[in-house]
Amino acid sequence: MTDKKTTIVDATDQAAGNGLMSRRFFMNSALATTATLVTGQSALAQEGVGVGQEDWTLYPGDDTPEYGDVSQFEKGRVKKLVAPPAGGRTASSAGRTPLHMLHGTITPSGLHFEVSHHGVPAVDPDKHKVVIHGMVDRPLKWGVEDLENYSTVTRNYFMECSGNTRVNWAVPKPDQNFMYMTHGLVSGSEWTGVPLSTLLDEAGVSKGAKWIIAEGGDSGSLSRSIPIDKAMDDSMVALYQNGERIRPSQGYPMRILNPGFEGNTSVKWVRSLYVTDKPVMSRFETSKYTDKLHDGKSLQFSLEMDCKSVITRPTNAVELKKKGMYEITGLAWSGKGKITRVEVSADGGRTWADALVEGPVHSKMLTRFRIPWMWKGRPAVLQSRATDEHGQVQPSRKALLAARGKQAYYHYHAIHSWSVNARGKIRHVYA
Amino acid sequence: MTDKKTTIVDATDQAAGNGLMSRRFFMNSALATTATLVTGQSALAQEGVGVGQEDWTLYPGDDTPEYGDVSQFEKGRVKKLVAPPAGGRTASSAGRTPLHMLHGTITPSGLHFEVSHHGVPAVDPDKHKVVIHGMVDRPLKWGVEDLENYSTVTRNYFMECSGNTRVNWAVPKPDQNFMYMTHGLVSGSEWTGVPLSTLLDEAGVSKGAKWIIAEGGDSGSLSRSIPIDKAMDDSMVALYQNGERIRPSQGYPMRILNPGFEGNTSVKWVRSLYVTDKPVMSRFETSKYTDKLHDGKSLQFSLEMDCKSVITRPTNAVELKKKGMYEITGLAWSGKGKITRVEVSADGGRTWADALVEGPVHSKMLTRFRIPWMWKGRPAVLQSRATDEHGQVQPSRKALLAARGKQAYYHYHAIHSWSVNARGKIRHVYA
Repeated sequence: MTDKKTTIVDATDQAAGNGLMSRRFFMNSALATTATLVTGQSALAQEGVGVGQEDWTLYPGDDTPEYGDVSQFEKGRVKKLVAPPAGGRTASSAGRTPLHMLHGTITPSGLHFEVSHHGVPAVDPDKHKVVIHGMVDRPLKWGVEDLENYSTVTRNYFMECSGNTRVNWAVPKPDQNFMYMTHGLVSGSEWTGVPLSTLLDEAGVSKGAKWIIAEGGDSGSLSRSIPIDKAMDDSMVALYQNGERIRPSQGYPMRILNPGFEGNTSVKWVRSLYVTDKPVMSRFETSKYTDKLHDGKSLQFSLEMDCKSVITRPTNAVELKKKGMYEITGLAWSGKGKITRVEVSADGGRTWADALVEGPVHSKMLTRFRIPWMWKGRPAVLQSRATDEHGQVQPSRKALLAARGKQAYYHYHAIHSWSVNARGKIRHVYA
Repeated sequence: MTDKKTTIVDATDQAAGNGLMSRRFFMNSALATTATLVTGQSALAQEGVGVGQEDWTLYPGDDTPEYGDVSQFEKGRVKKLVAPPAGGRTASSAGRTPLHMLHGTITPSGLHFEVSHHGVPAVDPDKHKVVIHGMVDRPLKWGVEDLENYSTVTRNYFMECSGNTRVNWAVPKPDQNFMYMTHGLVSGSEWTGVPLSTLLDEAGVSKGAKWIIAEGGDSGSLSRSIPIDKAMDDSMVALYQNGERIRPSQGYPMRILNPGFEGNTSVKWVRSLYVTDKPVMSRFETSKYTDKLHDGKSLQFSLEMDCKSVITRPTNAVELKKKGMYEITGLAWSGKGKITRVEVSADGGRTWADALVEGPVHSKMLTRFRIPWMWKGRPAVLQSRATDEHGQVQPSRKALLAARGKQAYYHYHAIHSWSVNARGKIRHVYA
């Protein structure tokens, strides 16, 4: 069938410094690093089994479940809860996605990051309605079952809290920052819902209307102002996430989804869409989710998320146990559109190689990139740099700080650096 | 913003008989069927809320969970268990996907259909290995962590049991067939794993090798023969499904995935890949999963799944409560490649209209189609007909039965018919 031998890595396969390999190598070669040679082949072949008789092969297995859960051996793959409400359930709480434990581009619905400023309400879908009112010809309302009869769309979109990676604005102690804390507030899903434009058209938006005030059905009535051009473009009232009804933490039974916009605008448990000519200036667009600038003034409504990427494997959650081939892989995304290029460096940005960007690439969705890496036991600094279809290139941390200053809090999107030492230990550094 | 009024449907929007509407209508028009006019607009606007104060708006919500579950109101959306083992856990059991309750193209991992012939083993990922042996230069084995360092691929693929829709071979009582029973053995996922070709290349496949015997780590050692050309093409050893580690029912911690092939060949809990020059002739390719022909002989190794589609909404799980606009939507797939066209009929196949085929379309993956339908309260027979990139067109039931005869059991893929009566009640018919 083939007379290939285990690939001998030579200089011609190098794509960039410190062991980054070409994509040709990636696609065509075996990476003989971690396989174990099996001795006693003929005996093994006669027996027809590979690895002896383990306990679970000796007895019939468990019954088929109605809803299959994760393995008992995977119970540690959960969200990291940050600042959970202490007793009173009144504070904001967040659950951060363990990107370093996941793969592909879809985030399982149960692990999609969450920031809930007033807890997770238990909304009864038979009672819940969403109303469009204000500057419209006909104020209208819909329940879940009403919306189910409409023409729907299914799209893959990332969602990111604009506070994601905010710890990287700070100077001290980057080595204490694990992936949960630096990048756990971004996730990707397949969303299905009714285009918001369909519902607005039906209500008949009045001339002069410029904003939609979306209000959630949580106890704090979280409200955000959405530009009407966005609402008429690609916003939706989402009913399904990854094939099934949206889960409570994600806004069950319906939420606004503003693709590429900061997550807080995608109002969960949405009950009111008020059409108006000015923003509402709610708590979440005045005291929060604004960007302080050099001159002390603050920028409001910086809604579109930036072009960004991060290596999810290897990270500081693992150690490299021996020299050899590894896959460097991660995620890239842009609130403006499609990712067109991801470069990876193994020498702290001195040289770069193009990673494989796995398609089909969706606009405003997490995009998986990969590149093979030969770790020779030497120190390395791993970085990724994303470019989107509008030419936006992920900046260095130095450039971002120069542009935004140290008083910034939201919208950090600079290149992220993982330092590998000679023993294979990995930590987050500023490089 | 817009001066559109509620759309008046006229003959120019018709795409085919009995109320099928054009995609132009679909894309540009509001479907004013189920919205409720809100009276007292000004009072409502002052108050800033749409639907009054429900209980869940009055108190802080629940804590953020580590792994978000489905809503308490959605607990009925589960797999349909068929022939569960009676006590002894020794029989085959199946869990069927509730396609009529889902949307989009991804099947949640917990609801992915399952057929387990020997129960679900609780495999310890630290002990489990997969070995490649037989006609190879170097027999090799890998554990989960070994494979994690390899170059991976992420792809969207459907999986279908070749016994899916087999009840439709039978003549009597189609009206008793609910979606679980007719189409519950097909699902779609994003899978991430190592290309099988990478591992085979590393082991060094010998000249003359033609088959891979894949054997599972279940107590029955389920074995299937996979043509080596398939194994070298797009088969993978999958580790992740929809972003997280594969769940036990789906083969945790690793399974074979043969895209477009009948599901049974995608051996779960795979522990042995034996390279040989002939198929193993296991129970599952002799007494099962073969196709009896007109002359009484049986066809073996009919592995590629056919071009097929089904309307998932509306179905016999719902009733149409009033006349008006609905979305007819469903899924189409082909084991040969991409879906290129789906036609829908509302008059039992007399006239057809092209549905919107929602992209990007993945090869060998569930593809969502949609078309708006104006139900005027008259009887209707709803059908869908898929075409793939190789020109394979889904046949009528009559044509399929003529070709395959009544003794057939697997690979039913004919056009499916839902009959709507004047009261809006829907049942499965042969039409």
